[in-house]
Amino acid sequence: MSTTESPGISGAQLRSAELEREIRKEPGRYRVLTGDRPTGRLHLGHYFGTLHNRVRLQDLGVETFVLIADYQVLTDRDIAENLTEHVEELVLDHLAIGIDPDRSTIFTHSAVPALNQLLLPFLSLVSVAELGRNPTVKDEIAHSRQAAVSGLMFTYPVHQAADILFCKANLVPVGQDQLPHLEVTRTVARRFNERYGAGEPVFPLPEALLSTAPLLLGTDGTKMSKSRGNAVALSADADETARLVRGAKTDAERRITYDPAIRPEVSSLVLLAALCEEKDPRQVAEEIGDGGGAALKRRVTDAVNTYLAPIRARREAYAQDRRLVRDILRAGNERADAIAEETLRDVRAAMGADY
Amino acid sequence: MSTTESPGISGAQLRSAELEREIRKEPGRYRVLTGDRPTGRLHLGHYFGTLHNRVRLQDLGVETFVLIADYQVLTDRDIAENLTEHVEELVLDHLAIGIDPDRSTIFTHSAVPALNQLLLPFLSLVSVAELGRNPTVKDEIAHSRQAAVSGLMFTYPVHQAADILFCKANLVPVGQDQLPHLEVTRTVARRFNERYGAGEPVFPLPEALLSTAPLLLGTDGTKMSKSRGNAVALSADADETARLVRGAKTDAERRITYDPAIRPEVSSLVLLAALCEEKDPRQVAEEIGDGGGAALKRRVTDAVNTYLAPIRARREAYAQDRRLVRDILRAGNERADAIAEETLRDVRAAMGADY
Repeated sequence: MSTTESPGISGAQLRSAELEREIRKEPGRYRVLTGDRPTGRLHLGHYFGTLHNRVRLQDLGVETFVLIADYQVLTDRDIAENLTEHVEELVLDHLAIGIDPDRSTIFTHSAVPALNQLLLPFLSLVSVAELGRNPTVKDEIAHSRQAAVSGLMFTYPVHQAADILFCKANLVPVGQDQLPHLEVTRTVARRFNERYGAGEPVFPLPEALLSTAPLLLGTDGTKMSKSRGNAVALSADADETARLVRGAKTDAERRITYDPAIRPEVSSLVLLAALCEEKDPRQVAEEIGDGGGAALKRRVTDAVNTYLAPIRARREAYAQDRRLVRDILRAGNERADAIAEETLRDVRAAMGADY
Repeated sequence: MSTTESPGISGAQLRSAELEREIRKEPGRYRVLTGDRPTGRLHLGHYFGTLHNRVRLQDLGVETFVLIADYQVLTDRDIAENLTEHVEELVLDHLAIGIDPDRSTIFTHSAVPALNQLLLPFLSLVSVAELGRNPTVKDEIAHSRQAAVSGLMFTYPVHQAADILFCKANLVPVGQDQLPHLEVTRTVARRFNERYGAGEPVFPLPEALLSTAPLLLGTDGTKMSKSRGNAVALSADADETARLVRGAKTDAERRITYDPAIRPEVSSLVLLAALCEEKDPRQVAEEIGDGGGAALKRRVTDAVNTYLAPIRARREAYAQDRRLVRDILRAGNERADAIAEETLRDVRAAMGADY
């Protein structure tokens, strides 16, 4: 495979497995950019889907940047509500799960002008037709809360290229639905290097590290969602967790099995317990045996509450000291800004605009 | 007329006449944003069309910002060539005509990240459909040198809103073809204020000061253009000017008259002499009388060379000290950056993003 061509989905999976081995061998060669929009509390779906992996990469020794994409909240709604609260909660969530501000950088879009400036030269590298074809944008437009598609929604894959390339990240953990976006970033990096690199690439072509996390369903059997109240938030307490799991959808069969295709709701609960206990879900199902839904739910509640206990304790400790949380974010913003300014200098020099 | 609604073209003309009176009365109430793309040498068409007016406004006491729109070079071509040279020539041209760096601010897009960041929230205020309808963008797309329309071309009226609003300019000198762009800026300002202003507007609704300059034709009778070699550049010397005017298209009639509809080429030359001599073009034509094309061209050459002499002398003096020119630009960039940072703070506070 040429390094300038991105593999298809199955290729991306193979490449991800290979990448995992390379990362373990030389973590210092990698820099990760990842992040979320500050639209509400993070939950267990986020945790086992992506957050856990961020901490894992950090702890392997990969330099990790966590972006709080505050401007991107406006891609599918008019106003970003309770922004300060949501941003602080996101910082808290990351500190709680083990993101270490001494090793990793947590920052917000709106505080890093030099990152955002990259959008300008990058927009010159992508055509309107290419923007209009992006399948993920098309899908998000279909689910938008807005009547009209905004310029921000239309251009956001290019903004995402600025997010990833500002720190010259070469590794981006993504789900399969995000592969088209990463492809835009790779296109922008490749075209910039071709047009302005003069033989020496300014940007890396970042690679996708495909998520291997199995899908957790919400307690109502649908997709876990911040807004549907069907997910255990990282910030929930033990009682809230018990209540939510107690209300979860199961079925009438007493024998608990792990069979996601046939029994999605029961299997998702088994999986959740298994993830928390770091066991195989089949073994967990076996252990519950004929206990039925009630035993399953007790097991899940215990597993989640045990697993989350240290995370909740850390969250609580940080939540007592909001000033520290804000200082951590401010330090992250400053660090991101310094890196973005440096990249912008490289970009200006490459473009012959360093006057 | 409500201040939130922009007048039509004839309304804009009436309003411009009114604005002129207001500016003379209270110049300190106005801040102007104007500028050019650094794509080549400025010529007499630019001078009498817009540059002269910039100096006039500055000298009336209006605070003046001159933007060198370096990123915008990429809206209609892949690469911005000889950027440093073109940027320095633009600075030189402005210093030569009398823009005073102690009173006015000359700066480049690429050096002011906080200005460019405004593009992000502003893009959330404009729909893709609105961007696609812009008649000036449509026209520019038709004349673009590129095969595909870039994201930068498509979004540039929003970028222009950031140019104008970063310094809260309330006055923008424009030609009629630029009115749709200014309308985008007004829409962005209005929507931002409505959405985030909480009763107190963050941005002014800038007004168009319509150009009253008559149109000068190139020496070949077509539109004056940097690239067609049919215009006297401000940086040209007296001999180059004489040569260019000598080759200008005229007609066979010996009697010189000022009649733009019937004798466009001859009338444009008469007009050029008249503008340089600050006389009525009919009087100039009368004075040349039956001298024919040769007398007309001698008159034009003398008039232009006399008029441009002090401008050329000042240009020459600055050109001897390139370090000074770069320092002037750097100081302008710093001043623009400080203002942009302040505006960005206002924007962050209004959006609830001041963490």
